[in-house]
Amino acid sequence: MDLARVIGAVTATRKEPSLTGLKLCVIQPLDADLQPVREPLIATDATGKRGDGELVYFVESGDAVPTGLGADPNLPVDAAVVGIVDDVDVRMRL
Amino acid sequence: MDLARVIGAVTATRKEPSLTGLKLCVIQPLDADLQPVREPLIATDATGKRGDGELVYFVESGDAVPTGLGADPNLPVDAAVVGIVDDVDVRMRL
Amino acid sequence: MDLARVIGAVTATRKEPSLTGLKLCVIQPLDADLQPVREPLIATDATGKRGDGELVYFVESGDAVPTGLGADPNLPVDAAVVGIVDDVDVRMRL
Amino acid sequence: MDLARVIGAVTATRKEPSLTGLKLCVIQPLDADLQPVREPLIATDATGKRGDGELVYFVESGDAVPTGLGADPNLPVDAAVVGIVDDVDVRMRL
Amino acid sequence: MDLARVIGAVTATRKEPSLTGLKLCVIQPLDADLQPVREPLIATDATGKRGDGELVYFVESGDAVPTGLGADPNLPVDAAVVGIVDDVDVRMRL
Repeated sequence: MDLARVIGAVTATRKEPSLTGLKLCVIQPLDADLQPVREPLIATDATGKRGDGELVYFVESGDAVPTGLGADPNLPVDAAVVGIVDDVDVRMRL
Repeated sequence: MDLARVIGAVTATRKEPSLTGLKLCVIQPLDADLQPVREPLIATDATGKRGDGELVYFVESGDAVPTGLGADPNLPVDAAVVGIVDDVDVRMRL
Repeated sequence: MDLARVIGAVTATRKEPSLTGLKLCVIQPLDADLQPVREPLIATDATGKRGDGELVYFVESGDAVPTGLGADPNLPVDAAVVGIVDDVDVRMRL
Repeated sequence: MDLARVIGAVTATRKEPSLTGLKLCVIQPLDADLQPVREPLIATDATGKRGDGELVYFVESGDAVPTGLGADPNLPVDAAVVGIVDDVDVRMRL
Repeated sequence: MDLARVIGAVTATRKEPSLTGLKLCVIQPLDADLQPVREPLIATDATGKRGDGELVYFVESGDAVPTGLGADPNLPVDAAVVGIVDDVDVRMRL
């Protein structure tokens, strides 16, 4: 999993029926120092409650997609916000 | 998921029987500013209705492949157009 | 999925029992202009009929592996030739 | 799988219900000479006992996620610490 | 799949219970000319019989992990040696 900030949203009214109700947000991946890395990408957000700028962590290529009502392995999704991050504590550097 | 534009099509009449009826399109991945990134790739398009230049979003390596009749986890597909994008709203930059 | 040409074969008589009968070919990935990209890799070819130089498309990391008798999700395979390409038609450039 | 050292922890109290009880650590991937490679990432640690600096190995994109009570394929996790490394013995160089 | 040579071993006595009995080897990925590419990585070797320097091929991110007693899709493994390579025959270059 990687850290990210929510930086926007994607609206897609015509989509796979199985994805109805899953909100799509644009997230900017961050490194352990909370600095931007890689390109922003689109992730599902089952809760629909992440505000802009919120610090989250997300999964990619995982099997099961969180829907807010448990994880569903049968959805065509390859990136999903999984939780809101309270604190990142890096206690040593290599 | 990432954004992309449909830029062409691939014809393959001899293929895995399980893929019969799934159209193949060539898509150009885009970043959040809708600028091209990476090489174009081949994705399935269950609806068969995406026109050239249409803005879509797609999954890679996802488990379930949209077929237009629900998602099927047993198809040999690693990239699939999932929806047509109405709007991308990036409200902050990092 | 990506385009590729079949450029050779790999012989491996001692392998996972579940892979018996699945031929292995060496494929050179191509971009949408049919120019080589990336390193060649090894892919399964369920049909066993792809000749050298043939234009194919292949999946990576897909769940289900085509066996020629339907797709099997329980095989240790991460790249598989899925179909023979008749035509690639890229109608616009970004 | 790759080697890594545990270098910190992530606290996320609001997360997918299915992830409750799975601790999150920050790990620094290492090469076979135990030198840092790539960016640190977040991984689950089912045992919750890995101390800072401990040498571990981890899986990415695997299907099944170790929970300490057997592997569960239905969790939204894409990186997981799987074991503590006693010894790495590289006996030849290419 | 990619080619590799076995160059060492990893000992990990404390690990996921489901992985008990699966040996871990260090493998050096090779290109089609058998030259080293990428960093070495850790892979399972169900047979436990691969000697140092042996030419093998391996899967990454595959669903099913070979255990020597058939493939098991429920193991936390993302790289596995699948077979011993007898011969690599690249008959054309692009």
